Amino acid sequence: MKRINVFDTTLRDGEQTPGVSLTLNEKLRIANKLDEIGVNVIEAGSAITSNGEREAIKAIVKEDYNAEIGSFVRILKDDIDAALDCDVDSVHLVAPTSDLHIKEKLKKTREYVFNQSMNMIDYCIDHGLLVEFSAEDGSRSDIEFLRDIFTEAVDVGSSRICVCDTVGILTPERAYHFYSNLSNFGVPLSVHCHNDFGLAVANTIAGIRAGATQFHSTVNGIGERAGNASLEEIIVSLKALYKDYSTDIQIDQLYNTSKLVSRLSGVYLQPNKAIVGENAFAHESGIHADGVIKNTSTYEPITPEILGRKRKFVIGKHIGTKGLKQRLNELNITYDENQFEEIFNKIKYLGDLGKLVSDVDIQTIADEVLEIEEEKKIALKELSIVSGNKVIPTASVKLEIDNNDILIADVGVGPVDAAIGAVKKGISDFADIELVEYHVDAITGGTDAFIDVVVKLKLDEQIISARGTQPDIINASVEAYLNGANRLLEHKENG
Amino acid sequence: MKRINVFDTTLRDGEQTPGVSLTLNEKLRIANKLDEIGVNVIEAGSAITSNGEREAIKAIVKEDYNAEIGSFVRILKDDIDAALDCDVDSVHLVAPTSDLHIKEKLKKTREYVFNQSMNMIDYCIDHGLLVEFSAEDGSRSDIEFLRDIFTEAVDVGSSRICVCDTVGILTPERAYHFYSNLSNFGVPLSVHCHNDFGLAVANTIAGIRAGATQFHSTVNGIGERAGNASLEEIIVSLKALYKDYSTDIQIDQLYNTSKLVSRLSGVYLQPNKAIVGENAFAHESGIHADGVIKNTSTYEPITPEILGRKRKFVIGKHIGTKGLKQRLNELNITYDENQFEEIFNKIKYLGDLGKLVSDVDIQTIADEVLEIEEEKKIALKELSIVSGNKVIPTASVKLEIDNNDILIADVGVGPVDAAIGAVKKGISDFADIELVEYHVDAITGGTDAFIDVVVKLKLDEQIISARGTQPDIINASVEAYLNGANRLLEHKENG
Repeated sequence: MKRINVFDTTLRDGEQTPGVSLTLNEKLRIANKLDEIGVNVIEAGSAITSNGEREAIKAIVKEDYNAEIGSFVRILKDDIDAALDCDVDSVHLVAPTSDLHIKEKLKKTREYVFNQSMNMIDYCIDHGLLVEFSAEDGSRSDIEFLRDIFTEAVDVGSSRICVCDTVGILTPERAYHFYSNLSNFGVPLSVHCHNDFGLAVANTIAGIRAGATQFHSTVNGIGERAGNASLEEIIVSLKALYKDYSTDIQIDQLYNTSKLVSRLSGVYLQPNKAIVGENAFAHESGIHADGVIKNTSTYEPITPEILGRKRKFVIGKHIGTKGLKQRLNELNITYDENQFEEIFNKIKYLGDLGKLVSDVDIQTIADEVLEIEEEKKIALKELSIVSGNKVIPTASVKLEIDNNDILIADVGVGPVDAAIGAVKKGISDFADIELVEYHVDAITGGTDAFIDVVVKLKLDEQIISARGTQPDIINASVEAYLNGANRLLEHKENG
Repeated sequence: MKRINVFDTTLRDGEQTPGVSLTLNEKLRIANKLDEIGVNVIEAGSAITSNGEREAIKAIVKEDYNAEIGSFVRILKDDIDAALDCDVDSVHLVAPTSDLHIKEKLKKTREYVFNQSMNMIDYCIDHGLLVEFSAEDGSRSDIEFLRDIFTEAVDVGSSRICVCDTVGILTPERAYHFYSNLSNFGVPLSVHCHNDFGLAVANTIAGIRAGATQFHSTVNGIGERAGNASLEEIIVSLKALYKDYSTDIQIDQLYNTSKLVSRLSGVYLQPNKAIVGENAFAHESGIHADGVIKNTSTYEPITPEILGRKRKFVIGKHIGTKGLKQRLNELNITYDENQFEEIFNKIKYLGDLGKLVSDVDIQTIADEVLEIEEEKKIALKELSIVSGNKVIPTASVKLEIDNNDILIADVGVGPVDAAIGAVKKGISDFADIELVEYHVDAITGGTDAFIDVVVKLKLDEQIISARGTQPDIINASVEAYLNGANRLLEHKENG
C-alpha cells in the first residue's frame, strides 16, 4: 500500500467559489472537521487577502491541530509576510509558469519568475516556513522550464512541489504522462486539478498513479468556475477501485463533512452528485429496487454504510410490484391481492401525471382502497393572516381537536412564522410537537407557482417528515405541519 | 476525424432519477430539443412501464425526427410487444450478463440468458425492429461469456452492441482495456457508463479511445443514483481536449438544452457543475478576474460563447482593485482615487462578514461614498395583507410616486401574488414593468430564516435582476420588485 497525503483547499480554493464567503466561525468549524477526519494539510486561506482572512487563519493556527496549517502565497514578499504574521506552518508558494500567465497576466519574463521564486523560497526558509512550491498553469507550461525551476526550487530548500492544472485541460492519459515526467525530484509531488471538463477526479488519480504522493482537493469539489477535484470522489475511488493506496481519511465521516460544507458555504449539491449526493444511494425504478432488495451489490458498487449513509427507496412511477409491497409492509399496511393491484395502478397513474409519490401519498391511496376512514386528530377549520410592512404579522386559527374547537392567535417575524406559531400553540395542550426543520425547495417561475413545503417534526423520540403543496406558502406550511402532527399522533396511539 | 454517434437516454435512464417524472408534453419538448441539437438516437422510454409511458413514446415517434427513436426492453416478449405497439425504430435490448445479476436478480442461468437473448433478437428482427443488444452489468461479467453472447447476437442480426458499466466501477485504464477487448465484432460498439465514483465521463472517453463509436449519455448527467455520463461534458471534452473525434451535436445549444432539462426535470444543478453550471464561467477572486480581463485564456480553457453562454464577474471579498474598477465602470459610476479606496475597503469589509456583494450593494456603497442622494421614483409607504384558508388573499398598498400617493388593492392565488399584483397595478400608469422571473432560493432552517427573493423585471427592452432579503417572504418580494422597478426607471431617465 502506497501512502497518499491529502492537502485540503476547501478554505482557500473552495472559498473562492463565486458567492461563497465564510465567516471566521464557519471556517473554524470546517477546519475542525477536516482535522478530525484525517486531512494532512489544511490550506487555511490566502493571508494577504484581507484582515478578516488573517484573523481566521490565526484562529485556525491556534487550535493546534494534527494537520499542517498553510497559507496560499504568491512570489511576493508582502504575501509571505502576511502568512508569517499568521504563524502558519507552511506556505503553498505559487508561481505562474506558463508563458501565457507570465506574459499576459504578470507582464514579466521566465527569468523574473525563476529568480523571484528562488528568492522567495529562500525568504520563506529563512523565516522557518515549510515550502510547497507550486507551478500555476503548470499543465500549459514548457516542460523544460518546469523541470529547471523545480530542480532549483528543491535545491534551494522547497520541501514539496506541486503542479496545477489550473484550467482543467488535462486528460487522464496526458495527466499520467505529464506527472510521470515530474515525479523524480526527490521530494513529494502534489497534483492539483480543476474540473472544467468534468475530469478532475480522473486526472488526480492519473497523477497519483504517475507518482504523485499528495493531492489537492476540496470538499464537494467547490472552487472557482467548475471547481476543484472532489475529496470524497477521490478517496472513495482510491479505496474501492484502486486497492494500492491508503490515506488517513475516515471514510465514514465523508458524508457529514460534505453536509457541513454544503450548509455553511451555501453551495448546495445536485442530487446526482457522486458519493455524497442525496440520490447516490436512492433507488426508484422497479427493476433496480427489486434487485437491491435481493442483493444490494446488484445496483450498488459500495454500501452506503461505508460512508455513514443509509439506502433510500423512492416510490415513483417506475415502482415494480415487489418494491411497492416492501414499502407497504414497512408502512404496516396490510392488503389482499385485489387491493394491492388497485393501490399499484393508482400509484402508476399518479406517476404518469408527473407526480412523485411520497409515503404520505401511498398512505392516502392505501387508506382509500382499504376504505379506512381517516381519523384526523387535528383538523384545520379556519386560518386568518394579517401582515404587511407596518403590521405585526399575526395569525389566528380555529382547530378542531377531538371534537373541540380551539381558537388561538400568534405573532411572528413573518406570516408563515405566525401561522405555524398559532397552530403549535393550539395543539400544545394536546402534544408538544417540535418543528425540527422547515424546508422550501427553490421557487422558480412566477409568484403563482406551487410551493412545496417539507417539515420535520418531532414528538417524544419519533421524527417524521411531512409535506404540503399549495400556491400559497402560508397554507402550504400549515398543511405540512398538520399532516405531520396527525401522523405523529396516530403513530403514538398505535404504539 | 472519427465520427462518434450520440445515444441519448435522458428520457429513459435520466427519467429514472428518483423523484423525476416527466409528463407527455415535457418529454416531447425534451425530445424536440434533442433532435434539434443533433442527437442520433433518442431512447424515448421503456414501453412496458405504463400506459402513460407508451403514450409519450408514441407521441415522440409521430414527430418524425431525424433521430432514431428507440425503447428500452428486457429480454421478455411482453417488453418487445409494448415497444412494437409504440412503433419505435429500434430497441435497446438489455440482458444481464454478470453472474451476480443472472443468479441474484433473475434467479436464472447463463444458458437461459444466452438462449433467451437470441430468441428475443430473432423476435425483434422478425418484427422489423433494429436491435442494439446490450450487456447489463457488463463490466462485472466474465469476458469470455460476453464475447460468446456478442458473437452470437451479431450473428443473429443485432445491428449494434453495447456494454454497460451499470454500477460505475470502471476506471479509465480498465475501461480502455475492457472496451478494446470488445470492439471487434464488426458492428458499432456503444459505451454506457454510470457516475458512482465521479468517473463516468473519463470512462466513456476511454471507451471511445478503445474503439467504441457510440456513447450513451444524459443531459446534465441525470439518472439513477449518481446518474449517467453527462452529454455536455463528453461532447466538450472531445471537442476541446481530444481533436480526433467529431459528433453531430451543436455545441452552442448545450447550455440551453441543459437549462431546459433542469427546469422540466426539477433536478437543479450545483453551481460548480462542469460546462453548464452557473459558475462554470464566473470569476470572483481578484487574481483570476484580473487575469481574465487581460486575456480570457489565462483562467478559461474555452470561451463561454462556444456554448452559447456569457462570462460573469462576481464581486466578493476576493475582488482586486482592477476587477472592482472594471465593475464600477460597467455600472457607469465615476470616482476619484480617494473615493475608490473607500468603496474598495467597504466592499472588503462586507466580504469579511460573509456577505456576497451584489451589483445593488456596489451601487448603494458607491452612492454613499459619492454622497449621491438616492432619488427613488417609487417608495413603499404601506402594505397590508389579509390571507388564510377561507379568505381570498388580498393586498393593499400605498405607494408614493413622484410625490403623489397611490392607493390600490389586488387579489392573488396567495399573499405574495396579491402583493406583487397590487404594486404592479399601482405603477402601471407610470410604467409597464413586466415580472419575467420570480425566484426564491431554497429555504432551510426555521420559519424565521431570512428569505432571499430575486426577481427579473423588464421595461421596454431592458431586463434587470433585483433582490430583497427579509424574514418575511411577502415584504422581501415587494422589496425586490420595487428595487428593480426603481433601477429600471432610473436607467430609462438617464438614457
